Amino acid sequence: MDLKPTKPLSGFIELLPTQQRCFDECANRMLGVLRKSGFNQLDLPAIERAEVLTDKDNWDEIETQMFLFQKGDTKMGLRYDGTVGLSRYVAGHLNDLVFPFRASQFSKRYRGERAQRGRYREFYQMDMDIMGVNSLSVNYDAEIISVIQRTLNSVSEFIGDNYVRVGSRPFWDALFDYLEMTDGQKKDVFVLIDKKDKMGDDDFAEGLRDTLGDAQKENEIKSVFTNGYSGFLNKSDKLDLAISELTKFMETLTAFGVKNAEIDLAITRGLAYYTGLVFEFKLSQYPELGTAAGGGRYADLAGKFSKTKIIGVGAAIGFSRIFVALMEAGRVDLSRFDNPIDAAVLVMGQENVGYAVSVLNAFRDAEIASVAYLDADKKFKNQIEYSDKINAKFSVIIGESEVENQVVAIKNMQTGEQQELTVADAIKMLKVA
Amino acid sequence: MDLKPTKPLSGFIELLPTQQRCFDECANRMLGVLRKSGFNQLDLPAIERAEVLTDKDNWDEIETQMFLFQKGDTKMGLRYDGTVGLSRYVAGHLNDLVFPFRASQFSKRYRGERAQRGRYREFYQMDMDIMGVNSLSVNYDAEIISVIQRTLNSVSEFIGDNYVRVGSRPFWDALFDYLEMTDGQKKDVFVLIDKKDKMGDDDFAEGLRDTLGDAQKENEIKSVFTNGYSGFLNKSDKLDLAISELTKFMETLTAFGVKNAEIDLAITRGLAYYTGLVFEFKLSQYPELGTAAGGGRYADLAGKFSKTKIIGVGAAIGFSRIFVALMEAGRVDLSRFDNPIDAAVLVMGQENVGYAVSVLNAFRDAEIASVAYLDADKKFKNQIEYSDKINAKFSVIIGESEVENQVVAIKNMQTGEQQELTVADAIKMLKVA
Repeated sequence: MDLKPTKPLSGFIELLPTQQRCFDECANRMLGVLRKSGFNQLDLPAIERAEVLTDKDNWDEIETQMFLFQKGDTKMGLRYDGTVGLSRYVAGHLNDLVFPFRASQFSKRYRGERAQRGRYREFYQMDMDIMGVNSLSVNYDAEIISVIQRTLNSVSEFIGDNYVRVGSRPFWDALFDYLEMTDGQKKDVFVLIDKKDKMGDDDFAEGLRDTLGDAQKENEIKSVFTNGYSGFLNKSDKLDLAISELTKFMETLTAFGVKNAEIDLAITRGLAYYTGLVFEFKLSQYPELGTAAGGGRYADLAGKFSKTKIIGVGAAIGFSRIFVALMEAGRVDLSRFDNPIDAAVLVMGQENVGYAVSVLNAFRDAEIASVAYLDADKKFKNQIEYSDKINAKFSVIIGESEVENQVVAIKNMQTGEQQELTVADAIKMLKVA
Repeated sequence: MDLKPTKPLSGFIELLPTQQRCFDECANRMLGVLRKSGFNQLDLPAIERAEVLTDKDNWDEIETQMFLFQKGDTKMGLRYDGTVGLSRYVAGHLNDLVFPFRASQFSKRYRGERAQRGRYREFYQMDMDIMGVNSLSVNYDAEIISVIQRTLNSVSEFIGDNYVRVGSRPFWDALFDYLEMTDGQKKDVFVLIDKKDKMGDDDFAEGLRDTLGDAQKENEIKSVFTNGYSGFLNKSDKLDLAISELTKFMETLTAFGVKNAEIDLAITRGLAYYTGLVFEFKLSQYPELGTAAGGGRYADLAGKFSKTKIIGVGAAIGFSRIFVALMEAGRVDLSRFDNPIDAAVLVMGQENVGYAVSVLNAFRDAEIASVAYLDADKKFKNQIEYSDKINAKFSVIIGESEVENQVVAIKNMQTGEQQELTVADAIKMLKVA
């Protein structure tokens, strides 16, 4: 019989135990920050009705981007982000939830497209959203940024420092109006701005020329990327409002103690959802990772599901993108995750298993991380080798004489030092080790 | 536009925030026990190649049981248990892992079949497995049972007591040999035994009669369900070996401190995988939930993937089955998960947001679970109502005079008592509250 492949499907992540401990520790710290910040951790289904995942009807195209399947008459698929499920959930529980409602999600998402370098088909994101009914102060946008920075800072020993750039969708809307662009031009230019980084400056300029055919307007738009909003003060009420909202927002960020925050109007966060301020975090030491977290405000989160107007501000941290990439690149010091075991109980002979197990039980009752090597017929050499390989801090050796004297022989695997202790004394020592 | 449905797909679980906190707390406690017991927490892909999920070629039938889909030439699907992925992973990492290797998994699994009452199509199981290369002492089977009981005991305040029943596949093999049954009879009778509970005694007896047509043999088999192994001592060496292995095993369980353990030869754990001892846990107060956890030993875990013989003992806890069912039935006291927030900071007027946010920051730096109501234009009535609805322990009220005096007005939401404190004193009070 041919052996089946042992590699996971391409684009799917599989970590070794030590990496996974680091991954889990980082997730737990960050989720702890979210919990203490009042976010309600939700765990929504990974599978949604296709009509929830998309408004489009062109299934062939969608099928290349998502994992879709059909059961009976129902088309369904795996979620590609956390927002679709959240909006459905909130709309379905308007009377069960207290608004402004804070939600966090740490879950796997799926992209059906062919796997590319650094693009996963199954990956974790960590979302946080604050949602209000009919109104929601922009102060919450500042809080979301503050909370993201707190979560990233909680794992800074692994990922270093971070910075945040803030953009404004209303600024662009106001600028387009001021330049008297048509609706078609607005849409096309916005697509260009969104793709500017990938296109390069020359193609961007050419795109603008093709769309606008007006050197003056083209230059005004290009000036935003060099001089920011400075050339657009006192040009229109709408521009002034957008600019003053943005500058006041930066002051609120300061009040929140957010560090390394600057305006960058090139940040637009693509075409979907967002209607207000938008933002992106990057890691100072790892610019090659791209966006570590991003988000913004949406004026009507759950319009597909409810007539109640839900205004939201939310963000997603690219958790797998950050941690898997850094671990695979060997940029994370995993040494502190190497030895999770305090005590490996080694048993010399099946007749001593009963006593060894009582020792193991006592360790576990005392919450000492401990394992036992229970193939008691194996030689001492094999057993101590096991203890060494799993990086146990101590080996606890049980043979005939230890059973007779109701003690343990405990060996420090770092120093090689060995001593005989009662179980109670061994526990005391292991608790402080 | 028609509104889209807000309910999740049938068979999919969606908890409210308070339920989710209980669910997560129980998971964390149980995973903590596993971690301290030396199990390496793995997080494997939810999607596997179809050829990994099944050996069968009858896709139409399999498609009714699983979520399957095709990308390019590759058939793939969502895992239905944790064992398939684990065996692939272990076979693919023989040189990266230390054996006996301890693995745990807490992950979502999927069943594509139509949702039935109490049967989920997406659900969590918590697995633990110990795997050895070429050999693995039966002592590990006892340890797995001990560890399961420790995990269940860690949440006994929610699920009550548990008991475990131990069966033996070798006993049945030995009995079938002793009764000189044909291979076809062995297989058919084993199917009957597996379905006995669902069939009832009469249908079971009829099935035996149809298969064996020998009243003596039929009665011998039926006697196992009333008298256990007692009638089969000194009948054959193979029977004696199976019985003595089982009775010695029960002594090892006692050494491990396992409570409420008994032999029950009716436990067979279905047809797949298992080749040795098998076991099932139930909850004493909730027999209607059926099997809370089950597992056993398999002689060749990864034979499909590797020529190296991996012997395993493993078990899965039906995590969603237990906790979702009990919560939905209102059998879990959720009151301690009702008020996760220590301090709700209320802000009277936008001009006081800066100070309020500095207070919020100070609370969060001190790891006090805190939120702020940042729609600062809203009336006090609305704001205190929010604090009340989220069950905050304290409201921390910031108005003009608090800013002026650099203090906070802090109101105990239980007693209604209110006092003025410096931020430092408020933190001291909240830390002990």
